[in-house]
Amino acid sequence: MAGNIFGTVFRVTTFGESHGPALGCVIDGCPAGIRVDIKDIQCELDRRRPGQSRVTTARKEADKVEILSGIFNGVTTGAPIALLIRNTNQRSKDYSKLKNIFRPGHADYTWLVKYGLRDHRGGGRSSGRETAARVAAGAIAQKLLNQAKIKVIAYTEEIGGIRGEKVDLKVIEKNSVRAADLAAAKEMEAMVLAAQKAGDSVGGIIHLLARGVPAGLGEPVFDKANAILGHALLSIGTVKGIEFGAGFAAAQLAGSEHNDPFTMRGKKIAKVTNNAGGFLGGITDGSDISIRLAIKPTASISQLQNTVDDKGRTKKIQIKGRHDPCIVPRAVPVVETMARLALADLLLQSRLNQI
Amino acid sequence: MAGNIFGTVFRVTTFGESHGPALGCVIDGCPAGIRVDIKDIQCELDRRRPGQSRVTTARKEADKVEILSGIFNGVTTGAPIALLIRNTNQRSKDYSKLKNIFRPGHADYTWLVKYGLRDHRGGGRSSGRETAARVAAGAIAQKLLNQAKIKVIAYTEEIGGIRGEKVDLKVIEKNSVRAADLAAAKEMEAMVLAAQKAGDSVGGIIHLLARGVPAGLGEPVFDKANAILGHALLSIGTVKGIEFGAGFAAAQLAGSEHNDPFTMRGKKIAKVTNNAGGFLGGITDGSDISIRLAIKPTASISQLQNTVDDKGRTKKIQIKGRHDPCIVPRAVPVVETMARLALADLLLQSRLNQI
Amino acid sequence: MAGNIFGTVFRVTTFGESHGPALGCVIDGCPAGIRVDIKDIQCELDRRRPGQSRVTTARKEADKVEILSGIFNGVTTGAPIALLIRNTNQRSKDYSKLKNIFRPGHADYTWLVKYGLRDHRGGGRSSGRETAARVAAGAIAQKLLNQAKIKVIAYTEEIGGIRGEKVDLKVIEKNSVRAADLAAAKEMEAMVLAAQKAGDSVGGIIHLLARGVPAGLGEPVFDKANAILGHALLSIGTVKGIEFGAGFAAAQLAGSEHNDPFTMRGKKIAKVTNNAGGFLGGITDGSDISIRLAIKPTASISQLQNTVDDKGRTKKIQIKGRHDPCIVPRAVPVVETMARLALADLLLQSRLNQI
Amino acid sequence: MAGNIFGTVFRVTTFGESHGPALGCVIDGCPAGIRVDIKDIQCELDRRRPGQSRVTTARKEADKVEILSGIFNGVTTGAPIALLIRNTNQRSKDYSKLKNIFRPGHADYTWLVKYGLRDHRGGGRSSGRETAARVAAGAIAQKLLNQAKIKVIAYTEEIGGIRGEKVDLKVIEKNSVRAADLAAAKEMEAMVLAAQKAGDSVGGIIHLLARGVPAGLGEPVFDKANAILGHALLSIGTVKGIEFGAGFAAAQLAGSEHNDPFTMRGKKIAKVTNNAGGFLGGITDGSDISIRLAIKPTASISQLQNTVDDKGRTKKIQIKGRHDPCIVPRAVPVVETMARLALADLLLQSRLNQI
Repeated sequence: MAGNIFGTVFRVTTFGESHGPALGCVIDGCPAGIRVDIKDIQCELDRRRPGQSRVTTARKEADKVEILSGIFNGVTTGAPIALLIRNTNQRSKDYSKLKNIFRPGHADYTWLVKYGLRDHRGGGRSSGRETAARVAAGAIAQKLLNQAKIKVIAYTEEIGGIRGEKVDLKVIEKNSVRAADLAAAKEMEAMVLAAQKAGDSVGGIIHLLARGVPAGLGEPVFDKANAILGHALLSIGTVKGIEFGAGFAAAQLAGSEHNDPFTMRGKKIAKVTNNAGGFLGGITDGSDISIRLAIKPTASISQLQNTVDDKGRTKKIQIKGRHDPCIVPRAVPVVETMARLALADLLLQSRLNQI
Repeated sequence: MAGNIFGTVFRVTTFGESHGPALGCVIDGCPAGIRVDIKDIQCELDRRRPGQSRVTTARKEADKVEILSGIFNGVTTGAPIALLIRNTNQRSKDYSKLKNIFRPGHADYTWLVKYGLRDHRGGGRSSGRETAARVAAGAIAQKLLNQAKIKVIAYTEEIGGIRGEKVDLKVIEKNSVRAADLAAAKEMEAMVLAAQKAGDSVGGIIHLLARGVPAGLGEPVFDKANAILGHALLSIGTVKGIEFGAGFAAAQLAGSEHNDPFTMRGKKIAKVTNNAGGFLGGITDGSDISIRLAIKPTASISQLQNTVDDKGRTKKIQIKGRHDPCIVPRAVPVVETMARLALADLLLQSRLNQI
Repeated sequence: MAGNIFGTVFRVTTFGESHGPALGCVIDGCPAGIRVDIKDIQCELDRRRPGQSRVTTARKEADKVEILSGIFNGVTTGAPIALLIRNTNQRSKDYSKLKNIFRPGHADYTWLVKYGLRDHRGGGRSSGRETAARVAAGAIAQKLLNQAKIKVIAYTEEIGGIRGEKVDLKVIEKNSVRAADLAAAKEMEAMVLAAQKAGDSVGGIIHLLARGVPAGLGEPVFDKANAILGHALLSIGTVKGIEFGAGFAAAQLAGSEHNDPFTMRGKKIAKVTNNAGGFLGGITDGSDISIRLAIKPTASISQLQNTVDDKGRTKKIQIKGRHDPCIVPRAVPVVETMARLALADLLLQSRLNQI
Repeated sequence: MAGNIFGTVFRVTTFGESHGPALGCVIDGCPAGIRVDIKDIQCELDRRRPGQSRVTTARKEADKVEILSGIFNGVTTGAPIALLIRNTNQRSKDYSKLKNIFRPGHADYTWLVKYGLRDHRGGGRSSGRETAARVAAGAIAQKLLNQAKIKVIAYTEEIGGIRGEKVDLKVIEKNSVRAADLAAAKEMEAMVLAAQKAGDSVGGIIHLLARGVPAGLGEPVFDKANAILGHALLSIGTVKGIEFGAGFAAAQLAGSEHNDPFTMRGKKIAKVTNNAGGFLGGITDGSDISIRLAIKPTASISQLQNTVDDKGRTKKIQIKGRHDPCIVPRAVPVVETMARLALADLLLQSRLNQI
């Protein structure tokens, strides 16, 4: 398997399986001189951690991170930064019945075809648990972004069709579903618990904002900022759609409506509107980056489903175990993470724009 | 500017500006032994060519391609394949008035910030004209895909809110807007001409299909097949959104509705439905790949717009010249191209899956 | 610091510092289906391990390797393979006096200039201890090479001017200096011990052979097999020169002497001589690869040396601690390792040569 | 064929065959704002050009370069820089007899094995003619190095065993063999002409210097400055050995002799000697870079040689046509070129060292 390295100059490699001994990451290309406190990494991991509320899986993982290299006296040295998270709460037995059968909506079948064998325990490397290592790396990326005063925030905009209308960023961490609208959050939570009770799951929409992004990030023509962010965000297993600014609505607008006129804000060039979502010609334009992501309903449900096994026999399957009835709340920090990794990489690359 | 190379093992570099002497591409990593007829490349270029119908720009470019290297006696040798397209119909004078002013919706401002200077003639490298070089490369990629019987087809699903309901792939090249529904095509064409008359532009939706894609393509975790296709397609300047399979609709489905049950089709494992759009766990699953793309309305409109110049003075701008009132029809072959480049790269990489 | 990733499709990332908690590596791009026994990795680490004989440093590191991911039931799964080696025998105090002073022949000065700070404990990331992680990765690479029956062997050809004339590969692991000539080995060992007694160090020459390498490896024009092997081997800190086949002697030969005539060996095309060292036009030609490497004398010596400190004051320095008086014997497995990593990468890439 | 791209952030792709329509290169990642005069590129090409003196091949190529993109009003724009050189003086007929036979010392056999077919005309892509495109790219790289006052100079140190003892850089371009010692130059020229008369060829040694290189270039651990330079230089087809600073002589020195003591030169930290050749721990140390390269005698000789054909029949071969009896003088600008490409890339990367 290739594909476990992300980034061009700020390069993150992750490793680890859901039921293996550990997960981790190595960051190559992080500049020297950045102050890093292990607590800041742990804090992000805690936001992604399973078992943090009643709308998430009951698997209990402490997700304690250990720094193995690259940080000396609390400062990055320029050496590769390796971070390790031990798995502690695997219950691999839950999966022994699933060894030879393909769970619908999961990677079981495709990975077996691809590799000729598979680690069936909790999905192995295809498990969403793999994102823990990304989140640890993203906490370091954010340190880099801090230097440029770039802020990345994501929140739940919709779950199971229930839409938050208000956007109050201060409440995001104060409700179990990470909505930016407290009233809607309650309905969303009820929706998730109802799905769980029904042995089913629900999806939703995450809105991602990046503020303070300077104009000039992104590399034309193939590595446009939106293409790199798209690559990063679509690498999250549950994302099924992505739109930038006006997005799909742009398809129905006239050019005269969609174009964002330029204007002066004090001495700064700015745009009157932001249909473009923060990019012009694939390069950040100094406006907020605004991206919406479609998150599919979790594939692991306890209802009876039709499937086949690896001998080609049709089967019924019922997935027991500890699963998230809705992954949207826990996907929020992962979405932020991937945006951080992408932006940190683009920010460093932008040092090479001019002589 | 970095970012002009796409691919991991089948790597395409493009170069050239809208009003420079030429455009071109170099493909590094194309296997030896593929029969290539220059007519097949030219044929794809003709599909993207400006001036091909009354719904496109009046700029007349022959877009004649020359093979500079890598093909000997009609067969790829394993050496890098270089393809050259001379620009012949530049009218750079059209742009001299736009030298110091930022066109809304264009890259003028962001590229100036990024590079400290810019080639203002027709947008320079940021022009959509750059995609001609990609299309030439894509024709070679398709030769590779042919070996695996992979077929890539895109069509216009919607323009300016008018939606084609029928999907008849045979009619795509038989109408000026490249719709798969002939009746809707007429309405779409009328819509484009009306926009043009109003000095305005319209956007739309392109549907991309890839058939015959074997299960097992894509590299977890960051280079999932959908993430790589997303990267490729979002690098097209006019794409503002992308969705895979059920896409944004998945956000409102329950897991029990969204999961595609497995079944047997003869001796082959298949899926009853294809909400996933052809990917499971980021790896192609043997189903058709189905992707929808939101295309923004063209930014170049002749209506008066508010903007600023590079001295920070507010200005009115009216963009004359030869522009597409709707880029959707000409974007269709470009969408196919990027899918071809992505799939050819993933197909070659899949040779490395197993010992 | 970038530069901690080696390889194009078989990509190895290493991390860890001499006196940090651990060293390790992650291999991305290893095919699934290779049987790996942890003992085979440990065995290679033991060959590189400090403290293995009286001609090496007295630092005692068990260098016990742990598999963190990518191997399930003793077989590679296609997922990234992460290997971990804990440091246990650091004596960082030895280095506190060297915090502000630059050791001649070491990276202290250059890394401080580069990064603005440095981990002074045992050279941090610049320490040769970093190669332990490479060796672990190399053991996996060898598993891949085994499939193609490629054998990589290195031996000490010369130490401190004493040259082994015989080449008996069976005796390499049976003498403390890893010479292929038992009689010379004794003299070499005496030479090393004498240098150590004098508070000095000696260098030497390592000869590297790769047998069974098929014709056709290497990627023209920049990634010729010899260029990739050169890159790999020159990344070992102690290597100061490299030559292929006739090497520097070729500079004095006529073309009629240096050219290796082709001949038939049974039904196989072969070369009468091997001045080329196994490469023609940068591509392996099916002959043995033959490379010679100049290894510098260890920089850490206990004699008094002139130097400066980070305030620009001239100083005398005497390096205490546990150091190798001659690194040649321990460099032998590292040389093999880098050849393995390079060849495994080229071997996989060669699957992409032809359609 | 992969391997036609060199560099990490300053990335050069070359294309073209000896007897194809053209050679060329594309540079991706060159910063905007560098003044480039086409004459500076042409000037370097003229130094490498065939037919420039009586010690080189009689093939007459004007090697006129055309700029296709990336430079506007004499300044780099940040867009990819494409340079084109048309072939004009091919005499492919010379090669028709060699279609099925393997020239000793050439890539004919290995490329046929690798790709299953080959362009036999003048060696196709494996021809040294390919380096013309590199030289064009190197002229741009030098513009970048100029900003940092880095100077790259190579000269012929030895031809056919005749060694220049004096080093007078001013005479290099004033003698046909590019020696730095005028008296020796005459003897070298006579040696080359004698070899030519005998239908034979001779090799030699090139010395490469880089002056003004700041401390801090190179990326540990795999991309050490010397490893990257090694990779770059070993990608030149005629290089069979490389040594840095004391090089192979280091193998016979004691550590106390080889270590370069630090000292103060005014307020600058410097080294008393430069056995290290300009690198410490793989990072440039501010001293001159000093590298020696073994150049093999040209493989194309008109003497009768033993070989085989592609049917496995033993044959005699006599290579007619226009060949260099000694490639050393023309290799000098190619050696400089590869050093420029490597250093430009490392110089840009060093902008990412610190926060």
